[in-house]
Amino acid sequence: MRHYLNINDLDDLKKTVQESIELKKNELEFSFLGKGKTICLLFFNNSLRTRLSTQKAAQNLGLNCIVMNFGSEGWELEFEDGVVMNQSKSEHVKEAAKVIAQYCDLVAIRAFASLTDKEKDKEEIVLENFKKYAGIPIVNMESATGHPLQALADAITMEEYKTTHKPKVVLSWAPHPKALPHAVANSFVEMMQLQDADFVITHPEGYELDPDITKNCKIEYNQKKAFENADFVYVKNWSSFKEYGEVMKSDSDWMLTADKMKLTNNGKFMHCLPVRRNVIVTDEVIDSENSIVIQQANNRTYSAQIVLKKILENL
Amino acid sequence: MRHYLNINDLDDLKKTVQESIELKKNELEFSFLGKGKTICLLFFNNSLRTRLSTQKAAQNLGLNCIVMNFGSEGWELEFEDGVVMNQSKSEHVKEAAKVIAQYCDLVAIRAFASLTDKEKDKEEIVLENFKKYAGIPIVNMESATGHPLQALADAITMEEYKTTHKPKVVLSWAPHPKALPHAVANSFVEMMQLQDADFVITHPEGYELDPDITKNCKIEYNQKKAFENADFVYVKNWSSFKEYGEVMKSDSDWMLTADKMKLTNNGKFMHCLPVRRNVIVTDEVIDSENSIVIQQANNRTYSAQIVLKKILENL
Amino acid sequence: MRHYLNINDLDDLKKTVQESIELKKNELEFSFLGKGKTICLLFFNNSLRTRLSTQKAAQNLGLNCIVMNFGSEGWELEFEDGVVMNQSKSEHVKEAAKVIAQYCDLVAIRAFASLTDKEKDKEEIVLENFKKYAGIPIVNMESATGHPLQALADAITMEEYKTTHKPKVVLSWAPHPKALPHAVANSFVEMMQLQDADFVITHPEGYELDPDITKNCKIEYNQKKAFENADFVYVKNWSSFKEYGEVMKSDSDWMLTADKMKLTNNGKFMHCLPVRRNVIVTDEVIDSENSIVIQQANNRTYSAQIVLKKILENL
Repeated sequence: MRHYLNINDLDDLKKTVQESIELKKNELEFSFLGKGKTICLLFFNNSLRTRLSTQKAAQNLGLNCIVMNFGSEGWELEFEDGVVMNQSKSEHVKEAAKVIAQYCDLVAIRAFASLTDKEKDKEEIVLENFKKYAGIPIVNMESATGHPLQALADAITMEEYKTTHKPKVVLSWAPHPKALPHAVANSFVEMMQLQDADFVITHPEGYELDPDITKNCKIEYNQKKAFENADFVYVKNWSSFKEYGEVMKSDSDWMLTADKMKLTNNGKFMHCLPVRRNVIVTDEVIDSENSIVIQQANNRTYSAQIVLKKILENL
Repeated sequence: MRHYLNINDLDDLKKTVQESIELKKNELEFSFLGKGKTICLLFFNNSLRTRLSTQKAAQNLGLNCIVMNFGSEGWELEFEDGVVMNQSKSEHVKEAAKVIAQYCDLVAIRAFASLTDKEKDKEEIVLENFKKYAGIPIVNMESATGHPLQALADAITMEEYKTTHKPKVVLSWAPHPKALPHAVANSFVEMMQLQDADFVITHPEGYELDPDITKNCKIEYNQKKAFENADFVYVKNWSSFKEYGEVMKSDSDWMLTADKMKLTNNGKFMHCLPVRRNVIVTDEVIDSENSIVIQQANNRTYSAQIVLKKILENL
Repeated sequence: MRHYLNINDLDDLKKTVQESIELKKNELEFSFLGKGKTICLLFFNNSLRTRLSTQKAAQNLGLNCIVMNFGSEGWELEFEDGVVMNQSKSEHVKEAAKVIAQYCDLVAIRAFASLTDKEKDKEEIVLENFKKYAGIPIVNMESATGHPLQALADAITMEEYKTTHKPKVVLSWAPHPKALPHAVANSFVEMMQLQDADFVITHPEGYELDPDITKNCKIEYNQKKAFENADFVYVKNWSSFKEYGEVMKSDSDWMLTADKMKLTNNGKFMHCLPVRRNVIVTDEVIDSENSIVIQQANNRTYSAQIVLKKILENL
């Protein structure tokens, strides 16, 4: 593997999940692999899990790790071609990407969606420009339209907790006071399309995700009906895709409650975190034994580690 | 030792001071101890000495060290139970603490007092919640009510510079333009209660520290009288505890001057730093040979290192 | 070498350039040299290249590297002597410098010009105070009046790309919407004074650099005439030195264009980056084969590494 921008960059998701579970048993086994090599983690946005787990994964592989908060520590970047740069942006991504590539062997980037310009967000201007100009492997630490390290961690977690060969998995929208990106939901959907599962997406009408991503996934507008016999309930807010970036609904009808969980097949509760308690999900559900959000977060280390390992082996 | 939240978490202060002095002679002797282990340093507030010395201590022990400025790099945390999280706080400490514990073996935290809510400050909501939920050792890098790494460094420094078995030690309040927390003074008082010393606290009336901490320590409202024959003069500002967080006095009467130092027994001047020159203490005193503030700061490495060593040995 | 504050701190520039080119061939050859030693990188200003390349250089030498953004993570520093510190500044450089020196073996500092107080900028109050009080080696990562790590990287790059023993090198001013410091231009001029070259500085009248630095360098106010037969064209904006910090001209007359490059002897285009495209230089020039700005940036690692190596060998 050269880059990891999308879950589909993995040759074989199922095999990668198994390899991750093996790696987890002996996380320092490949600590020689990164020796003398350097990864840069570039954050254009805040981060807790991704920041810590990717550093941990890099350390487990023996990589030198340089962390940079691009927004506050570097220069504002221009991404358009041919611009007269006489405004606030003092460096073009062409130079920034090529320069960073002089100092490291691979680079991981977090750059959220604008939620104001759908086309530019779909073009993934930050990641794609770095990929185009840096000439070294790029890892997506959550971009405008995807969060494939999260989706891989989700896949590992479901593999560890599933009790049937073909579980029923529900991705449910939930309310949130602010406009959130589609990245986590998108990558989860793309990942589920590679799984043996009965997969259902449920959300209020008007909250359809990008149809280029959901393709022919089953959509059920009745949340309770969707939850029937579910083995995994993955809850996540996202803003409208059609009315791009708008929050059209924020009352608590769609919050995940214990009553709704009773409709499931003793289902597991999943969320990528951070999660707003009693907005997205009640305390009762997230504090229950069926909540596996911490185990999910733990697998972020191993999803990052297997991805970095595959890239290092191919350098 | 499991956690280090308070100087009283040490089994035996005097023995720990001796061990620190031994460690200082060969600071890389235990560089194998942290191998393959990771410490997270979480800063909710600014830091110079603590930031650098704790990183140095971790490196001396061979620990991987991940530093995070929680305020600017992570998510705003909720600490209350049962809250509907529909305001600015996007993650609950329950998740944050448990998640961070997935990526590291121990965590050190700096979280200053609010100085607005005495009860919450006394409850130490940040540290206690991390302790409750993280399930891994927690180290206090200055909390609402204590700074035990500083107090241990102070104890090491006094041991190195004392010329008599039972020195006279004075903790003196000094003026400052802004409201400062009680943490340094509190931990110094708690540490002195474990020492063979003639210990006196001096401050203007109304500046009494928390009586739950000072207990039956001798308080002398006449600063000059307190200084008579002192071997160590530890100067520090704090805001009012009674009128919580208020600055009731800021004129220079209580500033430490060379004239006042003449009352001492060739006493040593101590301060935790940062110090405002010619407000807390005159240039003449801090620049004199009797000033040991830099040596104190140097011992921050060894107080952190002995604490981390004891925790690592017990992991 | 003890400190590296100025390009003239190098014993022998030409020899150092050759050593850097050797080091580049086997950058991990001296990875034993920094073992058990720590460098602090202190940033009072933003940085991309310097931040990453100096960390990379430190890692290549086996140094522990602690990075601190002094402005946002530490305390505001006082640099004046004898001040009553009752305003916003909470720590004096005397303490800060001495304290930092307790935790590391060498310190590198970035502290830009104020561009408001010419005398203080010329005094280099940040670097000189750290040098005076820290008592450990200080490395300049761009100060008020110089950027000698950049100038050394420039010298390495010119050595690699020159096709004649005594090339013609032109330093040309170019327009920029904001007031920029003189540091890069100053160090480039000082470095060129140590080279075998036909060196010309060109800029609009009123943009003369500090005559204490340019000394008897050739100045040509006609940019096109200056470019005739040039082997290297180094473009850089700076604000006025006479009318200190003022921007007196920002139209595009002095922008570097392909037409102007045609006047050169197939000259190479150089710039320290970040560069504003189509303000300082047209896309056509910076994207041409004669542009060596990325190679220049790459040499930042080796200029930092040879400097740190020389300091470590002398510790």
